[in-house]
Amino acid sequence: MRKDYLLTPGPSIIPSSIRKVLGGEIIHHRTEEFGKILQEVNEGLKYIFCTQNPVVILTSSGTGAMEAAVSNFLSSKDKVIVVSGGKFGQRWAEISYAYGLEVIPYNIEWGKAPSPEFIGDLLKKNKDVKAVFTTLCETSTGTVYDIEGIASFLKEKDTILIVDAISGLGQDRLLTDAWGVDVVISGSQKGFMLPPGLAFLSVSKKAESFLAHSNLPKYYFDLKKALKSYYKPDTPFTPAISLIMGLREALKVIKKEGREKLWEKFARLSLATREAAKSIGLKIFSQRPSSSVTAVVSPQKIKSSELVKRLRQKYGVSLAGGQSHLKDKILRIAHMGAVGEQELIICFSILEKGLREMGYNEFETGASLKKLEEVLYA
Amino acid sequence: MRKDYLLTPGPSIIPSSIRKVLGGEIIHHRTEEFGKILQEVNEGLKYIFCTQNPVVILTSSGTGAMEAAVSNFLSSKDKVIVVSGGKFGQRWAEISYAYGLEVIPYNIEWGKAPSPEFIGDLLKKNKDVKAVFTTLCETSTGTVYDIEGIASFLKEKDTILIVDAISGLGQDRLLTDAWGVDVVISGSQKGFMLPPGLAFLSVSKKAESFLAHSNLPKYYFDLKKALKSYYKPDTPFTPAISLIMGLREALKVIKKEGREKLWEKFARLSLATREAAKSIGLKIFSQRPSSSVTAVVSPQKIKSSELVKRLRQKYGVSLAGGQSHLKDKILRIAHMGAVGEQELIICFSILEKGLREMGYNEFETGASLKKLEEVLYA
Repeated sequence: MRKDYLLTPGPSIIPSSIRKVLGGEIIHHRTEEFGKILQEVNEGLKYIFCTQNPVVILTSSGTGAMEAAVSNFLSSKDKVIVVSGGKFGQRWAEISYAYGLEVIPYNIEWGKAPSPEFIGDLLKKNKDVKAVFTTLCETSTGTVYDIEGIASFLKEKDTILIVDAISGLGQDRLLTDAWGVDVVISGSQKGFMLPPGLAFLSVSKKAESFLAHSNLPKYYFDLKKALKSYYKPDTPFTPAISLIMGLREALKVIKKEGREKLWEKFARLSLATREAAKSIGLKIFSQRPSSSVTAVVSPQKIKSSELVKRLRQKYGVSLAGGQSHLKDKILRIAHMGAVGEQELIICFSILEKGLREMGYNEFETGASLKKLEEVLYA
Repeated sequence: MRKDYLLTPGPSIIPSSIRKVLGGEIIHHRTEEFGKILQEVNEGLKYIFCTQNPVVILTSSGTGAMEAAVSNFLSSKDKVIVVSGGKFGQRWAEISYAYGLEVIPYNIEWGKAPSPEFIGDLLKKNKDVKAVFTTLCETSTGTVYDIEGIASFLKEKDTILIVDAISGLGQDRLLTDAWGVDVVISGSQKGFMLPPGLAFLSVSKKAESFLAHSNLPKYYFDLKKALKSYYKPDTPFTPAISLIMGLREALKVIKKEGREKLWEKFARLSLATREAAKSIGLKIFSQRPSSSVTAVVSPQKIKSSELVKRLRQKYGVSLAGGQSHLKDKILRIAHMGAVGEQELIICFSILEKGLREMGYNEFETGASLKKLEEVLYA
């Protein structure tokens, strides 16, 4: 009889209209029919990425697109700034090292956001920096970075800004072209309400001009090939056809709701989540909380990993614990894609129950639900 | 009212029992529940790969796994033999060049199969060859290669045999361990009756020992990471969860039918296809036809690309034309995965119709169906 409530920061809930497409019959990808689907999807991606530049589709998880950004836009020993304040900033550094780039690390405490001015200073001191790698929403800490601020220091420079927006896109505001972000990366299993398996990568004119000089090896993730196919429209290798068919459906839903409305909605949902958590005595981990995922500090005597396990196994509510050194310290509640008010209400109701079962009682019963209603229905 | 009949060499038909799973609700991948699915899937893959070694799952098309084989088992300037007798042999060469390997090309005429003895001679002349790259079923020509014969020349040598079995696995017999094949690669959208998006790669003990020495850059396709996760079981990056859930269902179907039975079935289906084609005056392109896909030479005055378009658009029967220089010359009929007698009967009935419409009349009406029945129901 158990139902499942998915509030993890990827995968996220898939609406039944999209699941219906995913479970439909497959079609061949080298056909006019699929070409039309690609055309529609390409337009939809530009909309949600806020760009007039191409957004290529790769069949991989988001990490594949991150690797593509490193191996296509740069060359061995190129100097890059890598902002790292969580697991996914670290991933930029790991990929950069794997390809022999010269990394200028800008490490910040987990839960904090980088200072755009500091990056500006680094760029002044290092005139030959080819790229800045950073993150829109650092999923591991629930922190949104000031991408507009960072981008302002790269204008008119021969440096490209590459942003991992895998978990942030669709919830956290990101004006790719208006702010001057060269490469934005996302994945299918978060704001796009799809299963994992697709990654997206936007390419500015400036970034495209970097492709010609790169000397790093690549094949499956070769963006020159991907862009060449993009304009047909086609893909260089067999794509995840059913996911792309689902993507068309998802983009229809997104366009109908409107990107600005979505940013407002998730700002409200995340505010409600923070206020609800505080109303039962829990602290917010991030100093610059994102609209996509909220990291809550677990009560001192409760290991968040155990709480997460209990909520999932006993009550079907899936939240995420922490990663790396935060494994037992924080609890992450995602509000992305198809997550709405209803899921947050269920989440906090079960969270109150689980906390009490594990011996944490420092709140009034129903306090978080009252707070949710106050913020959400105001 | 039109229904579609998919006889292309990937994607192939997806049975409704599998589609139901693909359209089901998504679950989180870092859970006990998904761990159990992975465990089951890992066992099933060993069965269909005929190996006791691990078969890792990558979220990509088959080409991603081909790249993984190059970038993980080899180092720059390593000497490798690449067998190329079609588009997918060429792909091995392209990837090898992209990573700076020293390629000894063994180019054969499209439609012919390589000589194991010739490879044996190449190995004698080049003692320092690290790997031989070849193909089980060369999809572009419908040719099956003598992998057992090739493998016999690599025994007791410090050279690994890497086989692209993307379209062949499940139809063309391949005894990975018994023949001594080190790395076998496949993909989800052929014999596995799934949408594209997953690739599989088996790793022998000998191949695993090569991982430590490789100096080529990799991250998303890092097989050391993949193997480390494999034993938990887990995946290093977010996998295509819904496809893996579908894979569990597909492997159940495959196990129930039995791999030996499947090899027999597809040997019979491919024989029937060849005989049916010949009965209406068409020639078979390959000199060593595979059980997975049959390449038929188009009648002289008919461009196969136009015939394919007509059959698909007018009658919903999807076949494939040729690739590269064979674009207008051959017609490819796939018998893989869930394709059965019924689909072949529809295929040839519509093929007869289409051929007549395009001016080819050199056969008796129904001749190919008569032949199909003779072979299939004998």
